[in-house]
Amino acid sequence: MDEFDFIDKLQPKRIFQPNVVVGIGDDAAVYKPSRHKNQVVCVDTMVEGVHFLKHASTPEEIGYKALAVNISDIAAMGAIPRYYLVSIAIPSNWAEQDLLELYHGMYELADEYEMDLIGGDTVSTADKLVVTVTVIGEVEAHVQTLRSKAKEHDVVFVTGSIGDSSAGLAILLSQLAVDNKAHKEYLINRHKRPTPRVRAGQIIATLDRASLNDISDGLASELHEIVEASQLGITFNEADIPISEALSELKKSNDITKWFLYGGEDFELVGTTSAESWDKLKMACDEQSIKITKIGSVTSSHSSVQLVKENLEMIFLEKSGYNHFKG
Amino acid sequence: MDEFDFIDKLQPKRIFQPNVVVGIGDDAAVYKPSRHKNQVVCVDTMVEGVHFLKHASTPEEIGYKALAVNISDIAAMGAIPRYYLVSIAIPSNWAEQDLLELYHGMYELADEYEMDLIGGDTVSTADKLVVTVTVIGEVEAHVQTLRSKAKEHDVVFVTGSIGDSSAGLAILLSQLAVDNKAHKEYLINRHKRPTPRVRAGQIIATLDRASLNDISDGLASELHEIVEASQLGITFNEADIPISEALSELKKSNDITKWFLYGGEDFELVGTTSAESWDKLKMACDEQSIKITKIGSVTSSHSSVQLVKENLEMIFLEKSGYNHFKG
Repeated sequence: MDEFDFIDKLQPKRIFQPNVVVGIGDDAAVYKPSRHKNQVVCVDTMVEGVHFLKHASTPEEIGYKALAVNISDIAAMGAIPRYYLVSIAIPSNWAEQDLLELYHGMYELADEYEMDLIGGDTVSTADKLVVTVTVIGEVEAHVQTLRSKAKEHDVVFVTGSIGDSSAGLAILLSQLAVDNKAHKEYLINRHKRPTPRVRAGQIIATLDRASLNDISDGLASELHEIVEASQLGITFNEADIPISEALSELKKSNDITKWFLYGGEDFELVGTTSAESWDKLKMACDEQSIKITKIGSVTSSHSSVQLVKENLEMIFLEKSGYNHFKG
Repeated sequence: MDEFDFIDKLQPKRIFQPNVVVGIGDDAAVYKPSRHKNQVVCVDTMVEGVHFLKHASTPEEIGYKALAVNISDIAAMGAIPRYYLVSIAIPSNWAEQDLLELYHGMYELADEYEMDLIGGDTVSTADKLVVTVTVIGEVEAHVQTLRSKAKEHDVVFVTGSIGDSSAGLAILLSQLAVDNKAHKEYLINRHKRPTPRVRAGQIIATLDRASLNDISDGLASELHEIVEASQLGITFNEADIPISEALSELKKSNDITKWFLYGGEDFELVGTTSAESWDKLKMACDEQSIKITKIGSVTSSHSSVQLVKENLEMIFLEKSGYNHFKG
């Protein structure tokens, strides 16, 4: 495989963003930032054997997810994803066809958001595939949906449903058997093809003030990040946590707490805003059929995350969620 | 090692760029682009065992170089580096102290250019360390020092001296013995701590027109990229190629051609501009004590790179230079 030929094959067929001045093919890409907007940038790396298993996911699924997790970070800033760069370290047991499919998984998602691939790097490695995606987005200059923006008495909310992704991972790792075929596929799909909540992030960005995180490391961990950054506390109710039908069914014979509290990679959004803004947010989301749920409130109790169990027992949650790094 | 603690330790002590709105610590970084400027972005990955050997380089040298190679790409666009993000996949045999030193190698260079670390990702991996750096720079909106900008009769120029880096690598790989201690250290240093030519790139950006590349894959390969993108040819003279004193000394008992033609990672700039602009460029570089040398000219001979040897023999050069990808 020749690097130059391979890069030619990856060349996107069209450019979505009129602001791309120089795309792939020179030393660096050039784009013209819009006036009155801030740029938002993030990077995430996925490693074979740590974040995905080659035999358990198709290359297309791996590519899709590598881009999706970055778009999710952009969504959590209330921003719109615009451009991305992909750097990939390739072991010899990955065929060119596998790599092209991996990029096609990214193109599928990039097309949906009209994002342009504007650069990257391909290098060889001895052992495991490593794919690093950088995403650049745009946000109105006044918007700041930061972790530090929570205030006492804020409503705590989450989008979508929580815990599906790690239940799906448990199925893939043969740690969980699910008889219902549709539920099984649903949970695996939630793990492999998470939907970044860009539209929800856009609505949240219109509020006067909101704190916001995407759920990559588990709900408990993300709530801890908000209370630590805001120097406040959060109390939330187990009974209010939005759970999918598939996870509800599993609840009869499994302890699903580990999935919805500590299971990472849901890539839903979790945040806080004032009671008045919550009413607006809920209405705007309902109008666009975006699921969003109130699960608790912000307290003055410094840096504590408290869960009110269904039996009304109250427990303090540790931060330790999904932490690849400790792996 | 805990990811959150580790990221705290990496937190830069100060922010250089007033345009950083949100740095490390949230889902993504936010910065305010300047008006009338374009943003320039590039990404490069370095893999242990492929781009560096852990026993042959200090972590500080590895970090320095990982950032330097990206700054070099920004320089080749005539841009000024402003922000960077670092994503790192860490095997268990890398101690936290090693990693901190690796980041310090980057900080040293970032301080020199007043660049801000605004984000990144740390993940674990099974085998080899992989470090991916994204750099974002700024360039005046009218500047485009692209590969495709060469014109017939242009002067072909290079900065600094060529071939040192791969001679230094040959020493590190015990393929080359150099008795002169100062020369040996010089060559190794050129390989481990390349100097990105940002100031030279800035001067070139003031010219009416220039094509420009940084020499990452070897002079022959970079010249081929220019002629392919510009659909022209280049003829250059072996006698004019700037060679360091150390490499000149080696010439007595070695064939140094492989180093200056095909040896990569010099991270000098190579480009073309009109004869009138060349005079201005040479004068401006002389004023700032920046070494820049005319080595040839652009011809109408489509996509050919021709070397006039010192014995006046003419040979056509293949593109194949330094290509990590081919392993």
